[in-house]
Amino acid sequence: MMSCDTLVDARELAQSLLAEIRHATADGPGVTRESYGQGENTALRIIEERARELGLHHECDRAGNLWLSLPEENRDLPFLAIGSHADSVPQGGNFDGLAGIVAGMLILLGLRGRHEEAAPLKVLALRGEESAWYGKAYLGSLSLLGKLPAGTLARRHRDGTGVLSEAMSRCGADIEAIQRGEPLIDPAQMAAYLELHIEQGPVMVNRGWPVALVTGIRGNVRHNLIRCIGETGHSGAVPRWLRKDALLAVAELLSRMDEHWRVLLQMGMDMVMTTGICSTAAQSHAVSVIPGEVAFSFEVRSQDTQTLERFYTLMRDECQAIERDRNVRFEFDERLFTEPATMDAGWLNRLEAVAPAGVKLERIASGAGHDAAVFANAGVPSAMVFIRNENGSHNPFEAMDIDDFLMGVDLLTRAVTAKA
Amino acid sequence: MMSCDTLVDARELAQSLLAEIRHATADGPGVTRESYGQGENTALRIIEERARELGLHHECDRAGNLWLSLPEENRDLPFLAIGSHADSVPQGGNFDGLAGIVAGMLILLGLRGRHEEAAPLKVLALRGEESAWYGKAYLGSLSLLGKLPAGTLARRHRDGTGVLSEAMSRCGADIEAIQRGEPLIDPAQMAAYLELHIEQGPVMVNRGWPVALVTGIRGNVRHNLIRCIGETGHSGAVPRWLRKDALLAVAELLSRMDEHWRVLLQMGMDMVMTTGICSTAAQSHAVSVIPGEVAFSFEVRSQDTQTLERFYTLMRDECQAIERDRNVRFEFDERLFTEPATMDAGWLNRLEAVAPAGVKLERIASGAGHDAAVFANAGVPSAMVFIRNENGSHNPFEAMDIDDFLMGVDLLTRAVTAKA
Repeated sequence: MMSCDTLVDARELAQSLLAEIRHATADGPGVTRESYGQGENTALRIIEERARELGLHHECDRAGNLWLSLPEENRDLPFLAIGSHADSVPQGGNFDGLAGIVAGMLILLGLRGRHEEAAPLKVLALRGEESAWYGKAYLGSLSLLGKLPAGTLARRHRDGTGVLSEAMSRCGADIEAIQRGEPLIDPAQMAAYLELHIEQGPVMVNRGWPVALVTGIRGNVRHNLIRCIGETGHSGAVPRWLRKDALLAVAELLSRMDEHWRVLLQMGMDMVMTTGICSTAAQSHAVSVIPGEVAFSFEVRSQDTQTLERFYTLMRDECQAIERDRNVRFEFDERLFTEPATMDAGWLNRLEAVAPAGVKLERIASGAGHDAAVFANAGVPSAMVFIRNENGSHNPFEAMDIDDFLMGVDLLTRAVTAKA
Repeated sequence: MMSCDTLVDARELAQSLLAEIRHATADGPGVTRESYGQGENTALRIIEERARELGLHHECDRAGNLWLSLPEENRDLPFLAIGSHADSVPQGGNFDGLAGIVAGMLILLGLRGRHEEAAPLKVLALRGEESAWYGKAYLGSLSLLGKLPAGTLARRHRDGTGVLSEAMSRCGADIEAIQRGEPLIDPAQMAAYLELHIEQGPVMVNRGWPVALVTGIRGNVRHNLIRCIGETGHSGAVPRWLRKDALLAVAELLSRMDEHWRVLLQMGMDMVMTTGICSTAAQSHAVSVIPGEVAFSFEVRSQDTQTLERFYTLMRDECQAIERDRNVRFEFDERLFTEPATMDAGWLNRLEAVAPAGVKLERIASGAGHDAAVFANAGVPSAMVFIRNENGSHNPFEAMDIDDFLMGVDLLTRAVTAKA
């Protein structure tokens, strides 16, 4: 049986496990690990096999998430969960999510036999964190806590094939319990949820921070599908004043919102705005046809709920103005809302206190959403450690230095063994 | 053998032929007749069968176009070609193109045995007029005249499957001759090219004109594919100043050009601008990913070559400005240029002169392109008659009144039998 007592062993384990899962889920230059689907299953199977080889206990919960623990742990105390998610966006990077699961394994193995952790440790490998597949994030953690919104199980796959409940069912989830909103775990049994994750923005690289503490997580308001309906027509024969060009309407909307965003940032407000998907209707579009329909997504993120609501209202107002000006109409799917979340001050202070001498831990907000927000908003004290990462995430070019990663693992190990 | 001496017969023939071809090429609410492909073949086969039943001579030229004539015609004189095209855009309407072929058949049959036409008549059913399939219009007429631009034969189908030369070859075209630019007909043998076509804009409906004369045909400058390249990134984690959002760049470009267009119209210039296709990259786009690539088309049409060139230059200048502002870059495929064309003044005057008493024929420009422009620019005297049509074209909801159509057939019949 492999031991994991030294940092050298930890490095080897981390590198081999990350490489094995990258290889097994490769898709072009990146990786594809579909939520409650193929790549995610592959990653979890490899993690489970490795856990078995290492003599760890493993089990799945009724939402399909994988838990690892030391078989010799027998304290009847609330436990510390350390983990992250196993899925990725299509053609994403290897570290977004997976790094936090591997970190949990290293911490668990590193403490084996030392009996220094203040509470039982469990590694949690979550499913379904990415919204790219079913248009809704945090599927694994929300299901676990009995908080998956009504209707989510009926969401369609991004390709239009199948619905979430079928995919979850194939992964062994208890659809009836999740549909009922039954908590599959007692949150009071979780002393904390701790997550290591690569930073998904460029701030830490620019400022030279290998590890940082996360203060809070931006919430968001989203529409996955807004349709702008105009009228098709011959591109040469309809004069400007009689056109109902759906694309020029959407271009105007996005340009207006982009300008509002610029102004709000100058006023000191925290937000980002993204339309990640936008397309003329593929069945009928052509170079010589005035676009009669454009489908697009809209997302705004902020640490501040009021900013989210106000910017959203502004977007709807602009749509109404454009409808009048351009003889088009906008149709909105369900509005999705994810609350901003605040990380636990006690854990932030503890992480800061245990840092090795000379290491100054900066604090930053997370622009991206994380399962930690779900646990925090369910009342579980939650904390996150960010690891420096080049080239952002949700793309194949993520680049995390293993030394930075091991510094984060060391920091979390110190924190879970610190005297409260 | 069916006779076609009376207007009642003409109405019946037109209605049954239009209905038969609509039914055989139906696709959802519209019709799909692919250039040098399935629906076009079906339409031509039905026309040929009907021509055989009616005792007409039929033959294909080496570009795959179908010609019909009276077998008893034996004069060795330059002939009058009357026709239009058999293809349609995907899910287009039944009348765009087809009406002009049916009109030619009615004129030919209506004059049978009367020996009144000044020159031999031939009905020409052209292939490949729509650019929707291979990104280039007038394939059949350009090939016939030996003017298909170098490289066009290698253009890919809109679905990415196969190239034009393969499709043309399957339809019996002489690819080698077309590749060489060999004229497959002597334009000097064509005394004129006459085309009846539905109006594709809303002008005649708004003004109450059943039939109108076309003064000229707008030319155009096009790119079928412009790619805006930015950088993907996590939608929550990259601040505005570090983004390279390809979609907001394209939205700004289109909004700027839309505003320039508005101003130029106020200055009295003739033009229309259309981006018919625009899409984020389907393989990697997601609601939570900053778009790293957007593909779009761009087209400007005008009766004036200078306006085309100036607006095109303005577009390229704006792209450069946006590249600097937003850290993106634009990549352009081949620029396609179609010359504006002027209709023959002699034929316009003759059409006006033969109009029944009390009918005032208005003259309008064609915003859409037509094969008549190809013949006109090759030196063949060309003229077009527009028929009133509701709801534009290139969509399933074209609506041409059969009475308006028969008025156009009557007008052309009078013109080809008028003493010069």
